[in-house]
Amino acid sequence: MTDILIEKILKTSNPTCVGLDTAFEYLPENMRKFCRNFSDVGKAFIDYNVSLIDKLKDVIPAVKVQAAYYEMYGPYGAAAYFATLREAKKAGLVVIADAKRNDIGSTAACYSKAYLGETEVNGVSEPAFPSDYLTVNGYLGSDGIEPFLADCKRCDKGIFVLVKTSNPSSGQFQNRRFASGETLYEAMGALVEEWGSASVGKYGYSDVGAVVGATHPEEAAILRELMPHTFFLIPGYGAQGGKADDLAVCFDARGLGGIVNNSRGILCANKSEKYKGMNYLDAARAAVLDMREDIALSLSRRKI
Amino acid sequence: MTDILIEKILKTSNPTCVGLDTAFEYLPENMRKFCRNFSDVGKAFIDYNVSLIDKLKDVIPAVKVQAAYYEMYGPYGAAAYFATLREAKKAGLVVIADAKRNDIGSTAACYSKAYLGETEVNGVSEPAFPSDYLTVNGYLGSDGIEPFLADCKRCDKGIFVLVKTSNPSSGQFQNRRFASGETLYEAMGALVEEWGSASVGKYGYSDVGAVVGATHPEEAAILRELMPHTFFLIPGYGAQGGKADDLAVCFDARGLGGIVNNSRGILCANKSEKYKGMNYLDAARAAVLDMREDIALSLSRRKI
Repeated sequence: MTDILIEKILKTSNPTCVGLDTAFEYLPENMRKFCRNFSDVGKAFIDYNVSLIDKLKDVIPAVKVQAAYYEMYGPYGAAAYFATLREAKKAGLVVIADAKRNDIGSTAACYSKAYLGETEVNGVSEPAFPSDYLTVNGYLGSDGIEPFLADCKRCDKGIFVLVKTSNPSSGQFQNRRFASGETLYEAMGALVEEWGSASVGKYGYSDVGAVVGATHPEEAAILRELMPHTFFLIPGYGAQGGKADDLAVCFDARGLGGIVNNSRGILCANKSEKYKGMNYLDAARAAVLDMREDIALSLSRRKI
Repeated sequence: MTDILIEKILKTSNPTCVGLDTAFEYLPENMRKFCRNFSDVGKAFIDYNVSLIDKLKDVIPAVKVQAAYYEMYGPYGAAAYFATLREAKKAGLVVIADAKRNDIGSTAACYSKAYLGETEVNGVSEPAFPSDYLTVNGYLGSDGIEPFLADCKRCDKGIFVLVKTSNPSSGQFQNRRFASGETLYEAMGALVEEWGSASVGKYGYSDVGAVVGATHPEEAAILRELMPHTFFLIPGYGAQGGKADDLAVCFDARGLGGIVNNSRGILCANKSEKYKGMNYLDAARAAVLDMREDIALSLSRRKI
């Protein structure tokens, strides 16, 4: 799967992922005002997301769809989540379900079916939430990850395992150092590199990626060294404070190695000073193109 | 919330939680054979779960509903999840949403709304997935937990944080020892005890519980000592190999301190040698009553 993602990044010259963390207050007033209940919101989310996908699909390789923003609206939110994943797929984008799922093996197998595989009912199989990648949390260790690895292989899909997250308190556990000398995030990273060893593709990256926050450049540099075959999903650019110069370290000399997510900075671009006066679609497209340039500039300035 | 849970445990003399990890193959043949798609399965899950809730509600304090088994069926599964939570609430049971959610603060706030709080649409608020407790994963540290703590306080709800999970590879990270001398599960446990310090109720337990597997009695004993005010959600009894004697250490002299989950052992009781010939409802009820006795016996044999 990571070969396909990289090819889309090369084709668009853009390692940017648009985070469809669709919040009700982001919708234009004319979409919001008629919503009376969860069902209405679900439909409005689909319209909004489809309009963004349509506006951006030729300049981005992928979208990341954050499950929490949809689960807030119950089963209607789940229906909007499903439709968003499906429409993004139809538009030719790589689709990352950001759901950070985790559980014991038998239960992880259900999550894996839900996002990466298909579910069978009396001989007929369908995808429940059709995605190319799923984000997962590795706190439970290998046997909670193995079902995902099996489906990645069987269905040519991928996962991104939380290694060093972008939030301020991520160091509370992740940066603590074991008696053996390595930190928890390094231990997680080493295992992710190992889980991916069987699926390294033609660009040198595996289908088992890592979430590495743009807000922690020092840790990102250590991880890039430790995990040479692991593709990074890099959240934290923009609203969370991560800058292009901070995340350049995640990329190799070819400019490959990661995909940078931006959610609020693109969805709410029309509310920023910079894109004031533009409608949400034009502002989002301008923000995506500016972000592409910002990252390209940072990568070109590096000495490797 | 934990005061309410404990009162229900005292009333039923039963610290047993039934895990509605409803799998298609557990349903009776006459429910399964008419299912052609996810919608049919969702409806069958609701019928099956409601029949179990109805059969067991007078002898159990709580149900734990595992999200993965429903997400496998997409939005229809989400609808069945919603209906199951709602019907269990209506039946007077404490409802634990076992979804192991985790994310950065702003996103965790959405998950918290989805399960513990309510979501507002133009002035009207409704619960998305109405639950009393949510299981969460603390790998991201405090700022990913704080939104849940705020809703626990505001709405009188609770969470169970993964500390020492029941799966075989849980030790891979959780049992690793930091340079400071404590293990990761102990560090997580200490923080959980701290997060709960503001919500300790009349029985001495807080609304911030811990998931502690019945399959790891040694670690459970250490955690019980370390976390005197933390209520334990104890998975792993039965099918996963945990025994009543192993988990007795989680309970105080009054027989309080935890709730023991059993999923397959109750849902599939009619397929076991012991309850052969009974229908699934009678078998489930017999299994619950036997489990209650099994735990009571183990607790009475202890020396405290």
